[in-house]
Amino acid sequence: MGGIEVAAITSYSKEQLIALQKELSAEYEAFKARNLVLDMSRGKPAGSQLDVTNGVLDALESYITEDGLDARNYGVLDGIPEAKKLFSDLLNIPKEKIIIGGNSSLNLMYDTMVRLMLFGTQGNTPWSKLPVVKFLCPSPGYDRHFAICEDLGIEMITIPMKEDGPDMELVEDLVANDASIKGIWCVPLYSNPQGVCYSDDVVARLATMKTAADDFRIFWDNAYGVHHIYGEKKLADIFELTEKAGNANRVYYFFSTSKITFPGAGVSLIASSESNVAEIKKHMGVQTIGHDKLNQLRTVHYFQNAEGVRVHMKKLAEELKPKFDIVLKTLDKELEGTGLATWTKPLGGYFVAIDTYEGCAKETVALAKAAGVTMTGAGATFPYKKDLHDRNIRIAPTYPTAEELQIAMDLFCVCVKLAGVNKLLENK
Amino acid sequence: MGGIEVAAITSYSKEQLIALQKELSAEYEAFKARNLVLDMSRGKPAGSQLDVTNGVLDALESYITEDGLDARNYGVLDGIPEAKKLFSDLLNIPKEKIIIGGNSSLNLMYDTMVRLMLFGTQGNTPWSKLPVVKFLCPSPGYDRHFAICEDLGIEMITIPMKEDGPDMELVEDLVANDASIKGIWCVPLYSNPQGVCYSDDVVARLATMKTAADDFRIFWDNAYGVHHIYGEKKLADIFELTEKAGNANRVYYFFSTSKITFPGAGVSLIASSESNVAEIKKHMGVQTIGHDKLNQLRTVHYFQNAEGVRVHMKKLAEELKPKFDIVLKTLDKELEGTGLATWTKPLGGYFVAIDTYEGCAKETVALAKAAGVTMTGAGATFPYKKDLHDRNIRIAPTYPTAEELQIAMDLFCVCVKLAGVNKLLENK
Repeated sequence: MGGIEVAAITSYSKEQLIALQKELSAEYEAFKARNLVLDMSRGKPAGSQLDVTNGVLDALESYITEDGLDARNYGVLDGIPEAKKLFSDLLNIPKEKIIIGGNSSLNLMYDTMVRLMLFGTQGNTPWSKLPVVKFLCPSPGYDRHFAICEDLGIEMITIPMKEDGPDMELVEDLVANDASIKGIWCVPLYSNPQGVCYSDDVVARLATMKTAADDFRIFWDNAYGVHHIYGEKKLADIFELTEKAGNANRVYYFFSTSKITFPGAGVSLIASSESNVAEIKKHMGVQTIGHDKLNQLRTVHYFQNAEGVRVHMKKLAEELKPKFDIVLKTLDKELEGTGLATWTKPLGGYFVAIDTYEGCAKETVALAKAAGVTMTGAGATFPYKKDLHDRNIRIAPTYPTAEELQIAMDLFCVCVKLAGVNKLLENK
Repeated sequence: MGGIEVAAITSYSKEQLIALQKELSAEYEAFKARNLVLDMSRGKPAGSQLDVTNGVLDALESYITEDGLDARNYGVLDGIPEAKKLFSDLLNIPKEKIIIGGNSSLNLMYDTMVRLMLFGTQGNTPWSKLPVVKFLCPSPGYDRHFAICEDLGIEMITIPMKEDGPDMELVEDLVANDASIKGIWCVPLYSNPQGVCYSDDVVARLATMKTAADDFRIFWDNAYGVHHIYGEKKLADIFELTEKAGNANRVYYFFSTSKITFPGAGVSLIASSESNVAEIKKHMGVQTIGHDKLNQLRTVHYFQNAEGVRVHMKKLAEELKPKFDIVLKTLDKELEGTGLATWTKPLGGYFVAIDTYEGCAKETVALAKAAGVTMTGAGATFPYKKDLHDRNIRIAPTYPTAEELQIAMDLFCVCVKLAGVNKLLENK
């Protein structure tokens, strides 16, 4: 379509649609004939991106921590001091609020939810003893968050995402009136999958809103907190805001180096009020004697300090920017003005999310799959995998090479258009 | 006392006891004047023992697994093939039964118990939905096992330990008649703290006994499965026995390299029937994307194969044997024939357990503490920390140097005798 002003495909006559369908089908069959095997389904870094970080493998300078402890041995439940300092400086969170975990922040989230189920928090009833527990799920969102709720029998309520975060009027209204709503999932910076960054106003409202449940909790998964690509978005300080509002225990903050060093062998953290941290450590201290301190040291020795992480993230952004450029330019070139798709341009993170023409996401993904390109399953970005409009698709551009990605995106756009045209003809 | 035949102190007259008390008090005060700071409380390896294993820090030859996967990246929930093979060969467990975990088998035990609480197993009611859940705790036993039960509100029943394992007549009688008894903790080889090795008969009876609860489970913590010191004890194959008896789902088997490589940075595993493994993976796959695969590779590359582990364990035994010799020789020399203490000589593992004169464990530990030697808390080896006879004390000889250990043991024996004499005088 290029830059030329064209009529939206949605306004085509039946004859025009049939002609276009024929044209797109031919394009699609040509792709199919190439026997592609490409994957844009998961937010995995490419090997070349991981190579940037290989220095961490040999970074361990000593197994003695700065307070003289042997990191090879047992001990230190909540993380070695230099690891706490690194993340404290990087994320501007007081050290006293931080517990360093193992290689997976998802694991910390799951275990936190399990503790709430079995023990409750701050003297409130354990959630597993309640007739029903509900969670707010801003959507499109992260499928693995929703899977935790599903696994534990927590009822999910879909909250529409707006440009600056969840629909806060709806959120405020729900949490004020329903004490069985116990929490909300948030990826506040470069959200998965849309790349939405929560505005200061949204963060402030989340921190200060009245909740019917005393034990309402925000699962603040800042997975992409330093994962800037096009410039650098700032996030309001949720701890400062909740403390001022007298809601100090409201937030569990999660972070990890999974997409900073290695997804399989990074370091995770949970941060919360000192009272919540004491509660977590009481049970975590029964669960384990301590997480891998050598890997904490390895990470600290590699980066040296918070500025080291920031410099490193700039290198990773240089790896990722060309891939995001391919995705966004191809969407612009192939779908802009067609009326068959909308999307937002993320400024960081790991994903681009696209909304196809109503009712076309499943068919689009199926068409791509049949031609050898795996996308994240349609619906995966919604609770119970149910996208009522059947239109949201998550694009994960990080894993394929630039060449593979261009081919995959070209095919994907053909699939979006073909599914859209098919649907328009159905409706004629 | 040397090798000379002497009258047991327990048969002393009041006058003899008063004289001995004076003598022991003088010895004790002399120790106190030395301002010792020694620790025999936890089963931690000494730095010199960890040094034997330092090669593992640089052992990583490649980050690509034998099936071509990049271990730096996401994926592989249940462990890389070469790690499964290593432990399969070492422990004689089929690979299909094995899930490799993170750095802590305690963590796997806790999470397994949590899954039983929240989800139940094999279609049975989740344990958290039952009015009461009970666990059998052969004691003296491992305090951290008991802490898991206490944390989760599982009622503990103390089972006396015999020379060849738990009192099986009592166990069989209890589990046959009480469906609320859902499991038993076992450290079947070189048990913590006594070094008891379960006989073939005990293992067979555990595997085949009738249980009122369909979902009765054995937590088989083979923590010291390859930790031989004086010779090599064999353990019967619990999987073979349970399968033959139609109880294939009865066992969760745990193991780790915490005391093979590094306590803080080893590799753990859980093994169970294929049906149980599928059940575990269903929930574990929501909890995490995968454990640290680079550390799995590091471990495999260091040992190469099961024989490599066995050779390594012989080196560690050479480190440990002199320490166990000190403990056992000092006990023999100072306490044999006094009537104030009994103990068993372990053939492997990490501990020696001593029974003081009835009602003297707490005082013995307090005396040692006041003179600068920290022991494991008296009672810690029993559920709810309640040693009804107040007599069991765990000695952990691995952490101090040989010189420190000799001093600590000399003092300890004085404390055992002084506490015993004090008690005898009280009773006169």
